[in-house]
Amino acid sequence: MRVALLHPGAMGASLGAALVASGQEVLWLSEGRSESTRRRAEAAGLTAAATLHDLLAASDAVISVCPPHAAMDVATSVAGAGFRGWYLDANAIAPATARTLAEVVGPTFIDGGIIGPPAHRPGTTRLYVSGDGAADVQSWFGDGALGVHVVPGPPGAASALKMCYAAYTKGTSALLLAIRALAEAEGISGSLLEEWAHSQPDLTARSEGAARGTAGKAWRFVGEMEEIAATFEARGLPDGFHLAAAEIYERMRALKDDPAADLPRVLSALLEPRSE
Amino acid sequence: MRVALLHPGAMGASLGAALVASGQEVLWLSEGRSESTRRRAEAAGLTAAATLHDLLAASDAVISVCPPHAAMDVATSVAGAGFRGWYLDANAIAPATARTLAEVVGPTFIDGGIIGPPAHRPGTTRLYVSGDGAADVQSWFGDGALGVHVVPGPPGAASALKMCYAAYTKGTSALLLAIRALAEAEGISGSLLEEWAHSQPDLTARSEGAARGTAGKAWRFVGEMEEIAATFEARGLPDGFHLAAAEIYERMRALKDDPAADLPRVLSALLEPRSE
Repeated sequence: MRVALLHPGAMGASLGAALVASGQEVLWLSEGRSESTRRRAEAAGLTAAATLHDLLAASDAVISVCPPHAAMDVATSVAGAGFRGWYLDANAIAPATARTLAEVVGPTFIDGGIIGPPAHRPGTTRLYVSGDGAADVQSWFGDGALGVHVVPGPPGAASALKMCYAAYTKGTSALLLAIRALAEAEGISGSLLEEWAHSQPDLTARSEGAARGTAGKAWRFVGEMEEIAATFEARGLPDGFHLAAAEIYERMRALKDDPAADLPRVLSALLEPRSE
Repeated sequence: MRVALLHPGAMGASLGAALVASGQEVLWLSEGRSESTRRRAEAAGLTAAATLHDLLAASDAVISVCPPHAAMDVATSVAGAGFRGWYLDANAIAPATARTLAEVVGPTFIDGGIIGPPAHRPGTTRLYVSGDGAADVQSWFGDGALGVHVVPGPPGAASALKMCYAAYTKGTSALLLAIRALAEAEGISGSLLEEWAHSQPDLTARSEGAARGTAGKAWRFVGEMEEIAATFEARGLPDGFHLAAAEIYERMRALKDDPAADLPRVLSALLEPRSE
């Protein structure tokens, strides 16, 4: 089986390597891509295709792994090129967005969501899938580094699971950073850390870890938080938690290229816009 | 020293008992109060005063422990009655609200915030205080069940600490309940609990505990979440996390008198308003 993985970032390349380890040939689209992407694709054992036409003509399935705000463009370009094989969207998007993609792609659409870091060793990372064709995805990956699990239900069910999961993990990271910024603005950080040390002993380390762990990725968490907010809103539940989280990550966008971004820099970024 | 504790609820009565144990006389206002409040006050060793005038005339200090939305009314009625002793507001209010109370009460105002459950045994509960007079509060309570700590800074600093603390604890409880409701609405609760069991093993129990622990108190958390939202907004930070939390607790308001309220009942309350 030949699988197209369009633009392999860190997560996509790890899925590609898992597919290669399971005996599949994996192609990627090298046209206009950076040298670092090329190195990552080669390290994962992927084969370059020069154009989208070449890539799709050679592939039985496409897996889309990209920032949430790009998921629709990728699906539209693949469907527009006439591709009729399996199309697995593995992105952090709202169930309603997944159902819109399903309409664009057609009956070969498979809804997916990834939980965990890039899948370099077994047990860390799970790909959830739903819809027709979902049951086949496990055989693509075999028993390798990526665990594949079917979420019962139509397309959208796997995306709903991803939204619910990230609603807590990335939502509370944003909340912790907002609280550290508020404490700093109010001049009571020392007292808060003393109280946390007494009654919430993991929160100081978690907030410092949230700063280091999200600063470089905040730019792409903005769209994910907006997708989560839309998911709550569509079910008549408050969307404010994650619109606020989107605002926090938006203020951190400029830290993408700051390899030394830590809590003090994050707090500056969060408090700066209003000190102008 | 004689301390007035106006309307002792569960928290206020525990502060009263701690003051009595430290040798103070503690008075409460029995006019128009229920039999259960009377029993609680007597069990705590408090002395009834029939009218606000009698109470204040006999007291050196007033401690206000009430739902956040009532804090201003209590301060206004005490100041309006001409009371000039220490006035300690121990409620969950925004720093700006505390500063407004300070203007109403005058230079005898002490800002406070309580972290922990009712103080029945040492080590569980801390009263944070700030402003002139804060350093004296420790001597009122002695070395009893309630720990008293000064937050450096003007009135508002202790309230800011309480806001930052509850922003996480009560904010994440509301978020967890919203996520459980969303998973239910999307039909993927089983898959979410399986994923949590694998990677976030405390969240299932925490969400069930949040339902049982907040259902009966949600009616008074609404005002606290609004005070927290105002605290973020005043510092140019997003207020959406806690406006959303206020909405969650608002939908749970009717569970106040349901002693058996558990997660399924909370989820029904959260999802009902939009199924009409």
